[in-house]
Amino acid sequence: MIKIGLIGYGYWGPNLARNFNNNSEIELSSICDFSPDRLEAAGKLYPNVKLVSNVEELFNDTQLDAIAVATPVSTHFELAKNAILSGKHVWLEKPMTEKVEQGEELIDLAQKKNKVLLVDHTFVYTGAVRKIKEIIEKGELGDLIYYDSTRMNLGLFQQDVNVVWDLAPHDISIMDYLMPFKKVAVSATGSHFYGNGIVPKSLLTIYMEKNIVAHINVSWVSPVKLRQTLIGGTAKMVLYDDNEPSEKIKIYDKGVDLYETKEDLYHLKVQYRVGDMLAPKLDDCEALAMEAEHFADCILNGKQPETDGVAGLEVVKILVASEESLKNQGAPVDIS
Amino acid sequence: MIKIGLIGYGYWGPNLARNFNNNSEIELSSICDFSPDRLEAAGKLYPNVKLVSNVEELFNDTQLDAIAVATPVSTHFELAKNAILSGKHVWLEKPMTEKVEQGEELIDLAQKKNKVLLVDHTFVYTGAVRKIKEIIEKGELGDLIYYDSTRMNLGLFQQDVNVVWDLAPHDISIMDYLMPFKKVAVSATGSHFYGNGIVPKSLLTIYMEKNIVAHINVSWVSPVKLRQTLIGGTAKMVLYDDNEPSEKIKIYDKGVDLYETKEDLYHLKVQYRVGDMLAPKLDDCEALAMEAEHFADCILNGKQPETDGVAGLEVVKILVASEESLKNQGAPVDIS
Amino acid sequence: MIKIGLIGYGYWGPNLARNFNNNSEIELSSICDFSPDRLEAAGKLYPNVKLVSNVEELFNDTQLDAIAVATPVSTHFELAKNAILSGKHVWLEKPMTEKVEQGEELIDLAQKKNKVLLVDHTFVYTGAVRKIKEIIEKGELGDLIYYDSTRMNLGLFQQDVNVVWDLAPHDISIMDYLMPFKKVAVSATGSHFYGNGIVPKSLLTIYMEKNIVAHINVSWVSPVKLRQTLIGGTAKMVLYDDNEPSEKIKIYDKGVDLYETKEDLYHLKVQYRVGDMLAPKLDDCEALAMEAEHFADCILNGKQPETDGVAGLEVVKILVASEESLKNQGAPVDIS
Amino acid sequence: MIKIGLIGYGYWGPNLARNFNNNSEIELSSICDFSPDRLEAAGKLYPNVKLVSNVEELFNDTQLDAIAVATPVSTHFELAKNAILSGKHVWLEKPMTEKVEQGEELIDLAQKKNKVLLVDHTFVYTGAVRKIKEIIEKGELGDLIYYDSTRMNLGLFQQDVNVVWDLAPHDISIMDYLMPFKKVAVSATGSHFYGNGIVPKSLLTIYMEKNIVAHINVSWVSPVKLRQTLIGGTAKMVLYDDNEPSEKIKIYDKGVDLYETKEDLYHLKVQYRVGDMLAPKLDDCEALAMEAEHFADCILNGKQPETDGVAGLEVVKILVASEESLKNQGAPVDIS
Repeated sequence: MIKIGLIGYGYWGPNLARNFNNNSEIELSSICDFSPDRLEAAGKLYPNVKLVSNVEELFNDTQLDAIAVATPVSTHFELAKNAILSGKHVWLEKPMTEKVEQGEELIDLAQKKNKVLLVDHTFVYTGAVRKIKEIIEKGELGDLIYYDSTRMNLGLFQQDVNVVWDLAPHDISIMDYLMPFKKVAVSATGSHFYGNGIVPKSLLTIYMEKNIVAHINVSWVSPVKLRQTLIGGTAKMVLYDDNEPSEKIKIYDKGVDLYETKEDLYHLKVQYRVGDMLAPKLDDCEALAMEAEHFADCILNGKQPETDGVAGLEVVKILVASEESLKNQGAPVDIS
Repeated sequence: MIKIGLIGYGYWGPNLARNFNNNSEIELSSICDFSPDRLEAAGKLYPNVKLVSNVEELFNDTQLDAIAVATPVSTHFELAKNAILSGKHVWLEKPMTEKVEQGEELIDLAQKKNKVLLVDHTFVYTGAVRKIKEIIEKGELGDLIYYDSTRMNLGLFQQDVNVVWDLAPHDISIMDYLMPFKKVAVSATGSHFYGNGIVPKSLLTIYMEKNIVAHINVSWVSPVKLRQTLIGGTAKMVLYDDNEPSEKIKIYDKGVDLYETKEDLYHLKVQYRVGDMLAPKLDDCEALAMEAEHFADCILNGKQPETDGVAGLEVVKILVASEESLKNQGAPVDIS
Repeated sequence: MIKIGLIGYGYWGPNLARNFNNNSEIELSSICDFSPDRLEAAGKLYPNVKLVSNVEELFNDTQLDAIAVATPVSTHFELAKNAILSGKHVWLEKPMTEKVEQGEELIDLAQKKNKVLLVDHTFVYTGAVRKIKEIIEKGELGDLIYYDSTRMNLGLFQQDVNVVWDLAPHDISIMDYLMPFKKVAVSATGSHFYGNGIVPKSLLTIYMEKNIVAHINVSWVSPVKLRQTLIGGTAKMVLYDDNEPSEKIKIYDKGVDLYETKEDLYHLKVQYRVGDMLAPKLDDCEALAMEAEHFADCILNGKQPETDGVAGLEVVKILVASEESLKNQGAPVDIS
Repeated sequence: MIKIGLIGYGYWGPNLARNFNNNSEIELSSICDFSPDRLEAAGKLYPNVKLVSNVEELFNDTQLDAIAVATPVSTHFELAKNAILSGKHVWLEKPMTEKVEQGEELIDLAQKKNKVLLVDHTFVYTGAVRKIKEIIEKGELGDLIYYDSTRMNLGLFQQDVNVVWDLAPHDISIMDYLMPFKKVAVSATGSHFYGNGIVPKSLLTIYMEKNIVAHINVSWVSPVKLRQTLIGGTAKMVLYDDNEPSEKIKIYDKGVDLYETKEDLYHLKVQYRVGDMLAPKLDDCEALAMEAEHFADCILNGKQPETDGVAGLEVVKILVASEESLKNQGAPVDIS
């Protein structure tokens, strides 16, 4: 039984607590939060869990095997570092760290101490994303050419980071899992039109090797909720709409063919293919439940997490580059 | 009765012919196309219209009051210039010209010759866009803060221009009509992943005065057709979905309020407002019919078109800047 | 070349005229309407077609091979009868006749005179319905168990017939084509809540052999347009939504299995199957174009129309029974 | 503090337990179920609640103020009767009873014993239904003319009752709350096409005074989930789509006007009105939470529940009549 301590019982922490508690290999042992109200709320649902207000108690608890960190990003590095140094495996919320160097240091540390470091890119564990991965690996989409995602709603406007730090990690981590290509450059645009210095709406472009491109549109200030992701291949294309209650994934047998003609040697002729659409049945397990099981499996069997520090760092690199590009109205930032 | 000659009877020309023919003030007098097949098709529908294969015949026809140009953009400048020089009013397809200087020259020429120059930004004449304009002018949306548009489908892949020249003019002209602010800079990204040098998918950002921003996402290679436009105001927000058969416009009484609090002088507190949604009844006249009527009215009564050369030039400036930015992976291009 | 005369140039007639005119085997020879305005409108589009105001002229025209009847249902029998008696093939709008005996007489007459009698059940010629037929014939749906259709909108409120006569023929003809089972009884309900004696909204149930059932919901007084048809099979089920612009047909690998268990001999245990959904590519030819071609083929090659008098009569029988049931608040009417 | 005992911790009971537990006026005191597994599940979530397997213990518990009955309908009458006789207020699941006489007896008994009897018509307490009620009471819809509802999905196929007993109570209770008119007759149709004697799909018509009519379409065997309700008025019409995540209610300023004309004294002329659509903001409280609060208020302040025995009996009367009509292929059953 893996004994785990959870730091942070705010917006996301309760979901972690519930899933750790439901997992047969994990024992939710203690919960830490600086707010007495949040601790009281935790205590009502988990009467047998130890409630603490000081993180040191968790680091010093030699009974604990692992620590989950669900706090604001600015605290991730210190907490995760101390957790590893105190001999714990770590479940770390995304984005992994504020800075690239911090991410690199955590990866090194976890390796040296032989500890599991999982970054919580939850979407990677959804039935929808795993099904798309399966389709891609079968070669059904042909060569991958683009990723396009719109993630908008009204809500959770952050007060100290731009929207890219909050919403784009979802898309970057999905993209990196599905399309693990070398990234070349990042361009990000947006404006702080509310006058508080925060960019609540942004376009993000990631240039990759082989002319593959990702276009990501994130916003906290849309009157409607949109979750539309397209994965373009030369053979087929996928629409992943997370708003759909049942048919989240649609595989379109559609595409564009280019070929030379005798009459026109200068231009490639373009032809469209339009065929059937298939919406495959998806596994409807809760993603966090699968992820908790995977975390336990990594600890018990010495496996590397699918969303490890390296995957977490890839997201941080792009976010940091976006931030710089955003200050320069979209000027590209090299990340190759 | 305004006698009009139409140059170009390809993809869009037939729509112009039909609407000129239906208008009580306009007489469709001649149609010019270099393709005998297209002329034959025109002749079947309009047996009384003169069919010519040489544009000079139209310029030399002293009976003609106006010429409509519905040809590829590379020919717009020469044809429009000759039409004005031969004393005709001009209806010109969008985008107006390939180059900024060409657009400026046409504006000057039309003014000197006292001729009407209308650029066919069709969407400006739709019931939907005019209703949004009406709502904005009443002040219902508060201060305008952003424009966001996604325009995607599978089709009409051009062989000699990037997708921004084909699809973005719709959004830029709608935006410029609804939000006539001073433009500052343009950033555009995209990649030619089919290997033919053409960018079939692009993100476009237009920075405007007062931190207002426009985000435009255009694509020829999406398996689904999307036509979603958001107009964000500080008071209300509008969703304009041109795919919707009846409720194309939805006005959301939603927004974000920022204010200082005593406890936290460093950050503005964010609060959401969520209220009713209204889908107003729209005028369902065909946009081209209204535009033809407006063109006739401008000629007969010496009025300036709502989509005049200046409006056309604004679009060209942004397209030209986009092209330059696209070559530099989103580096901003100043257009102030 | 089949010379055809068209009687009735009101709401539907213009669609027939256009499709007859486009067909290479058919020559639209004359159009008859009692309204001078309608004839003038026809003349503008078809300058070479003979315009007449007296039906006798068509019956007496020995050049004519066929007559199409697109007039109110109360006139169908007389016009079709005279057309056949004068030696013409007949294209007859639906519903075929007002009375069962009239339909029977037309079938007899056409057979005796060796004339083609096609009843215009347009939906049977759509790519969507033909694709469903194809799927059924392959056995993909298993045993057919139910048909369910909702057909609602605001509009075309008739002044002399109940809504079942106007909207239900679409569904009955689709159902009869897809599920050609023996009908047993009909129940229809509805009320004339506007006080004009007309029922603008109705539920219709058709009991068939083998406990198969059809449920049809038709309305002229819905604020939204609905066109949802379900075809239930023991293996798979189909949703046909005619409002969808592209994915009109969705085949669901879903169903219910019933089986006995050792523990419970009295009840059959129910188990659900949930699998993939497929939206097949459809032929997007205009249905009327296909139907015109089929009509020509029947005339030229002595074939029986897919929607012949027998198919038309099946619809009439159900409508007449519905009318009787409607007067008795849903009391079933035997049609076996 | 109202001490409540809950009988039945199967499909719906856990929702009651959670809402009773969250209510500040109610103390969830004991839970009764004959299944040890269910009791164990209850114990994990509510460690302080008494778990019993014999209903007599609840009836005999003099500390209990109220009993909630969430068991199969066949047991409702006995359990509710004994609960009232033992001096408890009663929360009773729908449908209230199997027979009309049983419902009448419970109403009498509750009145005599001065106990609150609430029938759990949950939908009546949703923000959506209460908003429609508010709109109707303001007179916005004009005279009410019809109710139309489609409630379909794949699932929860019952083994001993027809689908009308399971799904129609939702619609009948919503309808009766919104449109409290005198009912006249019921017609119901359907077939047991799976061969197990159970009707899994049914059409239901309720004839009311003033020619008002309700059409209800319920099914357990649809591949898609539909929850569409229309409420037709002479002035406006409402679409209530419970599948919509946010805009559940749409008020259409649409309708039909009938009037006499000089030219046509025999027929009323029909004219359509088409105007704006409004989707009002809804209260998003959980319905069961509001209902629990209302139950407590009725007990503490001697009020009559909005969904009292009389409302419950109205539903039972219609269900019983439906059952009879169903056996006779839709023959109407008088309920006036």
